[in-house]
Amino acid sequence: LDEFSLIQQFFSTADIDENVILGIGDDTAIIKAVEGEDLLITSDTLISGVHFPVDTDPYAIGYKALAVNLSDIAAMGGRARWFTLALSLPAPDPGWLEDFSNGLFALAKQFDVSLVGGDTTRGSLSITISLIGTVPDGQAIRRSGAKPGDDVLVTGTPGMASLALAKLQGSIKQAETESVKSRNKLDFPEPRLTEGQYLRSFASSMIDISDGLAADLGHILQASGCAAILDQQLLLESQHTDMQIPIDRVINSIFYGGDDYELLLTVPDTMTPLLMNSWKSTFPALTKIGKITAGEGLKMFDHSGNVVDIAIRGYNHFYD
Amino acid sequence: LDEFSLIQQFFSTADIDENVILGIGDDTAIIKAVEGEDLLITSDTLISGVHFPVDTDPYAIGYKALAVNLSDIAAMGGRARWFTLALSLPAPDPGWLEDFSNGLFALAKQFDVSLVGGDTTRGSLSITISLIGTVPDGQAIRRSGAKPGDDVLVTGTPGMASLALAKLQGSIKQAETESVKSRNKLDFPEPRLTEGQYLRSFASSMIDISDGLAADLGHILQASGCAAILDQQLLLESQHTDMQIPIDRVINSIFYGGDDYELLLTVPDTMTPLLMNSWKSTFPALTKIGKITAGEGLKMFDHSGNVVDIAIRGYNHFYD
Repeated sequence: LDEFSLIQQFFSTADIDENVILGIGDDTAIIKAVEGEDLLITSDTLISGVHFPVDTDPYAIGYKALAVNLSDIAAMGGRARWFTLALSLPAPDPGWLEDFSNGLFALAKQFDVSLVGGDTTRGSLSITISLIGTVPDGQAIRRSGAKPGDDVLVTGTPGMASLALAKLQGSIKQAETESVKSRNKLDFPEPRLTEGQYLRSFASSMIDISDGLAADLGHILQASGCAAILDQQLLLESQHTDMQIPIDRVINSIFYGGDDYELLLTVPDTMTPLLMNSWKSTFPALTKIGKITAGEGLKMFDHSGNVVDIAIRGYNHFYD
Repeated sequence: LDEFSLIQQFFSTADIDENVILGIGDDTAIIKAVEGEDLLITSDTLISGVHFPVDTDPYAIGYKALAVNLSDIAAMGGRARWFTLALSLPAPDPGWLEDFSNGLFALAKQFDVSLVGGDTTRGSLSITISLIGTVPDGQAIRRSGAKPGDDVLVTGTPGMASLALAKLQGSIKQAETESVKSRNKLDFPEPRLTEGQYLRSFASSMIDISDGLAADLGHILQASGCAAILDQQLLLESQHTDMQIPIDRVINSIFYGGDDYELLLTVPDTMTPLLMNSWKSTFPALTKIGKITAGEGLKMFDHSGNVVDIAIRGYNHFYD
């Protein structure tokens, strides 16, 4: 496994932005800092059989490895800029590397992020991407800013990725068109970077949904020291209708499914109308799903209007 | 494996520096950029059985995972600042994690670098650290600045780490004191950050020796478009004397051993006397080992004064 030729062949053609003084090929990259901007730093690992099914198309693996990191920058309201790739492979397979790098760079190009360094090693398949973003001084949106009275909103259709997984595992049936849609959500999550930057002017707190809505809203509630009550009817309005799947199963996917990479945020209720009215038609749906309250814990109005407790827990995927 | 409790227990007590606005615990860290400084970005992975023997003390693994990244910043003449840790483990073992984090933070504290984020996943043992450093605008030392006539210098005792490996594998004998010294070089390489920042005022090019002196000098020669001729006698002067090991074996370790993390640099010959005279007694030895010349390739004056070709190739360690 010749690290240098691998990197040169597949990863040195990356576009770099105007702040990259020196990219791949020295001991480190050199980046010109951006005046008036804070740096956002994140790092996420994907492991075969844990974070994606072992038979996943390498194009999708390359795409998703970057997507989950971009999603973290989106959740802060930032712009994604520069990343490193640490790739561990059982053996160098040019076909695999070509597909993987095509998926990676398709997304890198879409959001104008530059690969500036990395490391290729021999080992079981695993990908760690570290990504640096920028945001105007002091304007990053944290998890800790939610206040009682704030509205709780979510982008897109949380839960769909885990329905794709349930379909793969044979535990649900889906119509063919729905199955393709949800598998696309699982393999090709769309990082909500443009939306996150737009939401920066409105959100009091924000997070991306990677562990399921319950766990990730739980992170906001814990960091902000408050509680929330959601509405089942509003949650279902965020979904495509698929009559083959029972409502309880859909609600379960939303709360505990994970892997959605939609944005979950709180907005002062006086700002919500302006946000909803100015929300762009090119963005995915933005749905108000509940309210922040005083106290602690997560509750929901069910279909009968009864208040039920929602357990705040995540779900660990293992795709072996 | 509960990622969050693992991270909180072992990694949230990290010291953070004055530029860290928000450390571990949100979607990303938030860092205040430093005026007048360029950013240096690097990422390195260590895999068990590839980059260290499987029986290595977890304290040494934690230490070395950070050390190899610090060494990349040292090679640019920079100051190391903020890092993320992506840790993949077969199972969460509190004793292992405690030793690992102790090794990691001992070194982090020594060089005042802050852990600002990361990811803990279940998988075979592998550690990826991504590290950001800073350097005054435009002053980073690259591989590409060597010129014919420059002197070639090296810090410390390159080759010792690979002698430790040879000892482990039973292919050489070492006196007990030498064996302990070289095993320490293998397990606890000292990142030359302070030395690198000092050398920034003198070096025309610099690199850290991770793949062996031949391969890493080869990187400088290729990037700078020139050749070099070294002197065997001078190379041996950089070494501790260990009469049990044949000279050819020592020379081989220097050229192809790797894992040394010493600094290899070129200096305009008019600057060398000032550098050597001002070199601090607290620094490791600095040895002039040869000259940069026009052309291409790497040569050496052997013990008889004959010029011999040195193959420019690296060595991939596999410690299975």
